[in-house]
Amino acid sequence: MKVYDLQRYLKQFFEEVELVGDGDIVITRPAKIEEAGEGEVSFVANEKYRKYIGSTGASLLVVGQQITPDQYSKRCAFLKVKDPYTAFVFLLEKFASSPAPAAPGIASTAVVGKHVELGSNVAVGEYAVIGDGCRIGDNCIVGAHSVLLSGVSLGEGCLLFPHVVCYHGVRLGNRVTVHSGAVVGSDGFGFAPQADGSYIKIPQVGVVEVGDDVEIGSNTSIDRATMGSTSIGDGSKIDNLVQIAHNCHIGRHTVVAAQAGISGSVSIGSNCMIGGQAGFAGHLSIADRTHVAAQSGISKSVTSSGQAYRGYPAQPLREQLRQEVLVRNLGAMKARLDALEAELEKLRDVQ
Amino acid sequence: MKVYDLQRYLKQFFEEVELVGDGDIVITRPAKIEEAGEGEVSFVANEKYRKYIGSTGASLLVVGQQITPDQYSKRCAFLKVKDPYTAFVFLLEKFASSPAPAAPGIASTAVVGKHVELGSNVAVGEYAVIGDGCRIGDNCIVGAHSVLLSGVSLGEGCLLFPHVVCYHGVRLGNRVTVHSGAVVGSDGFGFAPQADGSYIKIPQVGVVEVGDDVEIGSNTSIDRATMGSTSIGDGSKIDNLVQIAHNCHIGRHTVVAAQAGISGSVSIGSNCMIGGQAGFAGHLSIADRTHVAAQSGISKSVTSSGQAYRGYPAQPLREQLRQEVLVRNLGAMKARLDALEAELEKLRDVQ
Amino acid sequence: MKVYDLQRYLKQFFEEVELVGDGDIVITRPAKIEEAGEGEVSFVANEKYRKYIGSTGASLLVVGQQITPDQYSKRCAFLKVKDPYTAFVFLLEKFASSPAPAAPGIASTAVVGKHVELGSNVAVGEYAVIGDGCRIGDNCIVGAHSVLLSGVSLGEGCLLFPHVVCYHGVRLGNRVTVHSGAVVGSDGFGFAPQADGSYIKIPQVGVVEVGDDVEIGSNTSIDRATMGSTSIGDGSKIDNLVQIAHNCHIGRHTVVAAQAGISGSVSIGSNCMIGGQAGFAGHLSIADRTHVAAQSGISKSVTSSGQAYRGYPAQPLREQLRQEVLVRNLGAMKARLDALEAELEKLRDVQ
Repeated sequence: MKVYDLQRYLKQFFEEVELVGDGDIVITRPAKIEEAGEGEVSFVANEKYRKYIGSTGASLLVVGQQITPDQYSKRCAFLKVKDPYTAFVFLLEKFASSPAPAAPGIASTAVVGKHVELGSNVAVGEYAVIGDGCRIGDNCIVGAHSVLLSGVSLGEGCLLFPHVVCYHGVRLGNRVTVHSGAVVGSDGFGFAPQADGSYIKIPQVGVVEVGDDVEIGSNTSIDRATMGSTSIGDGSKIDNLVQIAHNCHIGRHTVVAAQAGISGSVSIGSNCMIGGQAGFAGHLSIADRTHVAAQSGISKSVTSSGQAYRGYPAQPLREQLRQEVLVRNLGAMKARLDALEAELEKLRDVQ
Repeated sequence: MKVYDLQRYLKQFFEEVELVGDGDIVITRPAKIEEAGEGEVSFVANEKYRKYIGSTGASLLVVGQQITPDQYSKRCAFLKVKDPYTAFVFLLEKFASSPAPAAPGIASTAVVGKHVELGSNVAVGEYAVIGDGCRIGDNCIVGAHSVLLSGVSLGEGCLLFPHVVCYHGVRLGNRVTVHSGAVVGSDGFGFAPQADGSYIKIPQVGVVEVGDDVEIGSNTSIDRATMGSTSIGDGSKIDNLVQIAHNCHIGRHTVVAAQAGISGSVSIGSNCMIGGQAGFAGHLSIADRTHVAAQSGISKSVTSSGQAYRGYPAQPLREQLRQEVLVRNLGAMKARLDALEAELEKLRDVQ
Repeated sequence: MKVYDLQRYLKQFFEEVELVGDGDIVITRPAKIEEAGEGEVSFVANEKYRKYIGSTGASLLVVGQQITPDQYSKRCAFLKVKDPYTAFVFLLEKFASSPAPAAPGIASTAVVGKHVELGSNVAVGEYAVIGDGCRIGDNCIVGAHSVLLSGVSLGEGCLLFPHVVCYHGVRLGNRVTVHSGAVVGSDGFGFAPQADGSYIKIPQVGVVEVGDDVEIGSNTSIDRATMGSTSIGDGSKIDNLVQIAHNCHIGRHTVVAAQAGISGSVSIGSNCMIGGQAGFAGHLSIADRTHVAAQSGISKSVTSSGQAYRGYPAQPLREQLRQEVLVRNLGAMKARLDALEAELEKLRDVQ
């Protein structure tokens, strides 16, 4: 593909795509700016990477509109756009050729139950098992070895990689991606303590509802509700090895990083960012646009939106950082205390 | 089912089940009190939910004996019992109709090895693989795609959801439930460091023994012992994504919440409660009835039973809470120190 | 096997293997020293276990050269070597008889794609799926239900337990062991935020490259790179439930304990030891031979090698321990401050 072709392609997404340099250079693939060579395209979206512009071997760079390519002497073309990061994502998509994890059609070894509704253009991989009463929307891909228990419904364009399990009654929206090893709809962790110290299991009769455009990472567990539903809103992204307990509700466009753990009946708002390994106590309510730092332990509800939290137990970011500084300076505080005591001792002697 | 029927059903479990209201009302399913409507049954076990009694749309409420239904004007029947939470659990079970994850009998696609002993009324799902010399007790259900390597034994009434893996020689007791993605018996993480910085693997020749009535959550890993066994006692409940390392011993009726991690050779007593994301250093011994708060890091053995721990490194709960208050007040302490220094400065000037 | 046989066996690995006692005693298996009985062999490598030498029921002990067996009265033979721990590992291997997780040959139910290169002496288990263009080296074992998407390559002597998933293009070196539920090559967690609060997925077009002699634990997730590769160096050992994000690079002979989480684009050096549940912020660089304590949160790069870190946020071990002591003594500090204020109050009154 030539630089001209890529310029034309990006014009679908951006009003202005200014070309500086030779539009006839042939580009074959994307690369990181520090590793890129001839025929490769890279980008600069972050000030930190600007230093590479002069030295990169790339043949094309996608950059912001404030960059002045003329000052760089390299034989490299430039495409200037408002949001070079997103532009590069579109280029990645243009060049990406990830093979689908299942061939078109229903593999002969797949087991499809009774009363299953299959949309058009569905691919079901080897040994996949689709239970009775499932509904699979148009253009879905169900990877090899994935198991959908009875009554599972997938909207249109879902992509399940191999080895996904959806328990009975789980509902995924449209364009949901689920990675290998993820389990959606396992029983909530609910047991009623008895007088003799033993427990009886609380039946988990609810479901899991996942909205549109959600991505669920590998080896993540999302438990079904005790009653009602566990839900994940449209556009939210869940990383690998995340625990989402029974009756949690996660809003729209919320991002949950790897190994975070959300206890039962927690409601997290929309457009939140939850750091890796962060944990939430049960029954909390977290306002929209809350940011939670990695490894934080949220022990109370967050009522005002747009705040950042950090620490164990977590507090508003600024308070936590101030406290961390105080703790780091405890040695100095102790020294001042020693000095005060010594001085007072002297004063006492004087008197 | 009528309210009268449910009263009769609960009398199996409770001495007194007092009905207040109309026993002929038809009940079709359980619901959360704040969402319940006509024909639905809910419960109040916790003071926090008492406020909903007046406004719920439920047709039946299970409540404690101290509740006086007459003061509520709603058209709703009441069943008064000693333990409304447990009573409701029994009602959930009555109404629950979770489909079994495998149909009765051995699926034609299942692979059953040599010298396998299968009890009566066993269900083995599609593509399950049962290795040579396995023993499967009566009434077991082995979900689709589960793999039991050679010599695995399951007691009676075990329920393995799809995609469970038991390595060779793993032994589960009676009525053990294992959720999808759980791996029981993978190799302990043992490597002997060599002088050149490399490692040689220590063969893991032990097993895993799981007692009766244990539940193991989705995507949990339980490693086999180096020698001897890793064991989990009767009635213990292990949540999702938990790590139980080689040679751990967990007592009876101990509850381990999601993403907790237990290092090698740790012994945890009976009736303990381990919070989510808590971690244990290796080779510790933890007394019975110990409570460990979520995200705590236990670095020392706990010798006296019935204590609560929290923090990183963890300390007895009260000490930890006192310390957390002191840390939060460090700013005030620093201000007092500043004031003292200023005052002493003045005193010095006076002299 | 007789003690003489074991002495001869160990002489392959050690220059000196001194026998004290009866070389004709028959040894049938290894055991822990505190549980060992007749016919069993155990070892003492650690001072803590020396106390068991007098009371063990073992028939053979492997001990260090500084031990003087004569002072123990038991009927037990001794083999004295320089490194009794490693010697015992070799004995474990001698006695270990872990059955291979797949029988020799290609199971009739396995699905092998087009243009697959299979080495000699390969075992592929029931229902395994090997995608188009995969290359499987000599002596590999691919467990039941494992799925290799297209273009995966395994070196020689790899061992994949059941239920392993390798996404397309993943490359494993020689003698790599992967435990059940591990997912290698799932998409990196990359999404470009849009002005309306939604995200668009960044295609993950890179791969994962794993060196020789690496072990990967059960239910671990290793994400493919956005561009380029995520890599794990020769001899590194990754425990269960570990998260390794896109574009991470891990050096040689580095050990990562269970549930540790490594964010995107982190480079960890060689011969590091990463504790369980430790976490790393993104884009850090960690020097060789760094030790990270369990549950630590590494927020900055580590530039000098051979240092130990601990805490949240992590600091050099000594500073962190000093700080933890100061925090634990905050109550005493507060009492001293109270006393100073009271004394100053008195002084003020005097004046």
